[in-house]
Amino acid sequence: MRDQGRFISLEGGEGAGKSTQAQRLADHLAARGLPVLLTREPGGAPGAEAMRRLLLGGAGLDAVAEALLVFAARRDHLVSTLRPALAAGIWVISDRFVDSTRAYQGHGQGVPAAAIEALAAVALEGQAPDLTLVLDVPVAAGLARARARGVAADRYERLDEAFHQRIREGFLAIAAAAPGRCAVVDAARPPGAVAAAIASLVDARLP
Amino acid sequence: MRDQGRFISLEGGEGAGKSTQAQRLADHLAARGLPVLLTREPGGAPGAEAMRRLLLGGAGLDAVAEALLVFAARRDHLVSTLRPALAAGIWVISDRFVDSTRAYQGHGQGVPAAAIEALAAVALEGQAPDLTLVLDVPVAAGLARARARGVAADRYERLDEAFHQRIREGFLAIAAAAPGRCAVVDAARPPGAVAAAIASLVDARLP
Repeated sequence: MRDQGRFISLEGGEGAGKSTQAQRLADHLAARGLPVLLTREPGGAPGAEAMRRLLLGGAGLDAVAEALLVFAARRDHLVSTLRPALAAGIWVISDRFVDSTRAYQGHGQGVPAAAIEALAAVALEGQAPDLTLVLDVPVAAGLARARARGVAADRYERLDEAFHQRIREGFLAIAAAAPGRCAVVDAARPPGAVAAAIASLVDARLP
Repeated sequence: MRDQGRFISLEGGEGAGKSTQAQRLADHLAARGLPVLLTREPGGAPGAEAMRRLLLGGAGLDAVAEALLVFAARRDHLVSTLRPALAAGIWVISDRFVDSTRAYQGHGQGVPAAAIEALAAVALEGQAPDLTLVLDVPVAAGLARARARGVAADRYERLDEAFHQRIREGFLAIAAAAPGRCAVVDAARPPGAVAAAIASLVDARLP
């Protein structure tokens, strides 16, 4: 039987370059000869993508309802996509996972950490990434990058800088509290340098 | 300042007559001169109604994802509709509330009670109905009534009789464990007799 796959999550605030780096990491792993699935949250499964549209459509939910909806989508992602892929020996890269809820709904919007961990326990039944890469970039630089994409500001990009500062500090606190799972990557550098740093990290931690 | 309103939930399996009785109870309370809001779950607020469409549309979710999504909708219902109405002195009648999740996802589909209570604690922050009426009807009679409505069988009506038996026993167990909040109503009688029994019960418990 084939080995279980590995699960890598990419986390970070707006404009940290997660989507670009997720794709470059997928290319790197494929070049190592590994089967790779690139997925994202919220979403990554049909039901979860429908919930993503609800979340991004601005349904006027409070932060607790958002956290519940995000975990409903995450549960579907886990059951429909992540577990089957990992069981089939596929390496999974997810653009965002549970740390985004800790950072955005928790540190950013004030949902108590105990509430978020209670939801995580129900939804994930202990499933965690093998490796989480926190892409860290100063708030002003990240927001400038996100705005330069030319797309309309999303609901988070419109919030004030203090909010984004709490998100950044939240991600750094999460990484500091779980050094065995997380690594912080300086994502203020050019994309090629960040991709090279990530590739080295992944090769060292998940040979 | 006006008194806080009262919160009454109607619960029961398929074909128990909840919707009919909720309307008749609303008429009865209005005749007592009370301001009444009739609402339902899943739904009862714009975001929650969008989640209802997702749930009823058959998104292929497992029972845990369904429970998370139902609680996300319930949280929106609580924050957007229930709390403001109760604070404004309105009496709220909800066609289903948290006991439906305990019965359907818990007793019916096997989500552990501890998981459901953990979600309830996060979503509801202690808010419970002042009175819950469990409309009880034998499974075969309830399913026959639901089918006689002439609408297409919903996802629950299609499930087997053993499932519906677990739901019925679940509701009775919930009511037995919380006699201060719940009352079981024999709903196998004609609608007028059930309505009269409910009106007496409500007048006695919430004068």
